Amino acid sequence: MELGLLYSGGKDSTLAALLLDDFYDVTLVTGHFGVTDDWEHAKAAAESVGFAHERIELDEAAAQDAVEKMVADGFPRNGIQAVHEHALERLAAEGFDAIADGTRRDDRVPTVSRAQAQSLEDRHDVDYISPLSGFGRGAVDRLVDSALSVTVGPSESIPRADYEAELRALLREEHGESAVADVFPAHDQTYVEGPR
Amino acid sequence: MELGLLYSGGKDSTLAALLLDDFYDVTLVTGHFGVTDDWEHAKAAAESVGFAHERIELDEAAAQDAVEKMVADGFPRNGIQAVHEHALERLAAEGFDAIADGTRRDDRVPTVSRAQAQSLEDRHDVDYISPLSGFGRGAVDRLVDSALSVTVGPSESIPRADYEAELRALLREEHGESAVADVFPAHDQTYVEGPR
Repeated sequence: MELGLLYSGGKDSTLAALLLDDFYDVTLVTGHFGVTDDWEHAKAAAESVGFAHERIELDEAAAQDAVEKMVADGFPRNGIQAVHEHALERLAAEGFDAIADGTRRDDRVPTVSRAQAQSLEDRHDVDYISPLSGFGRGAVDRLVDSALSVTVGPSESIPRADYEAELRALLREEHGESAVADVFPAHDQTYVEGPR
Repeated sequence: MELGLLYSGGKDSTLAALLLDDFYDVTLVTGHFGVTDDWEHAKAAAESVGFAHERIELDEAAAQDAVEKMVADGFPRNGIQAVHEHALERLAAEGFDAIADGTRRDDRVPTVSRAQAQSLEDRHDVDYISPLSGFGRGAVDRLVDSALSVTVGPSESIPRADYEAELRALLREEHGESAVADVFPAHDQTYVEGPR
């Protein structure tokens, strides 16, 4: 069975891929708004762990809407959630037998409720799988430590391809550097460099 | 890392074990009230898929309480949920690094909420993992079809070792055969006979 997994190059989506690897033909898929070339970091991370990689085009309008939502809110959560839902809809239309993402049990954003999952499955005739949703933060961290070599650093300096890099760039373009600092509090991210 | 997985011999808990097998030293653990010898079916199923197996003693008082709850309710859901929570508490005290069960995203019973999971983890210093909670019914069925050889049949005639066999026996003993039919509506169960 062919499975497309929404992929950022970070530890969570990489671990999700490893969990599914025995059961599906996994392709790592990175959503791309055409704003920056950060998707190339995800491609490199995917290659470092030996998975096929594709990118899919997302609507730049969805990114614009998300940025306006984040500026109005003063925090990124709802904008990132909206972009994740848009990316899952696009991925579900790609013709895979199953789609997946790296959302964890303890994540506050993005989240996919059971009702959203069933709606995706019914409308697109696809299985939606969130292999890490049964794992807490501690279990994920311990599995990553045992299986992957990762770099950890401040969010703005780690090469990744989640939506954040492109949303930051759009936000900077539309509202200036100070808006980026207002919306995104300082936090660390990870980037996968290969198997341990 | 040593992981103990609550095991019935059915397809869900067997698939959960296969999903975790690359990442943990998995032992399949069957809870046992001392009412019947149905735990032996789980041991045989565990051997057929090549996993280590242990049984743990549960309190017969917990089974008695569950049976009274089911008779009072007229349906088994709350009694089975209470017994599952009791079994997880016992398993969490066994000294594994992580514990797991076969609950799925679409299950109505038993369920383990995020708050219950975190409480188990904090009180017992253990990771609680529900590897199938990110999989819907359709995805589980397709994975089982591709990975396992199973027998499907009416719940009362399939050799298993979930709590149901022992709870049925206790119910029959305390309240007679008609109480069993009243509480447990007819439904099919599965039993794993080995890899496909």
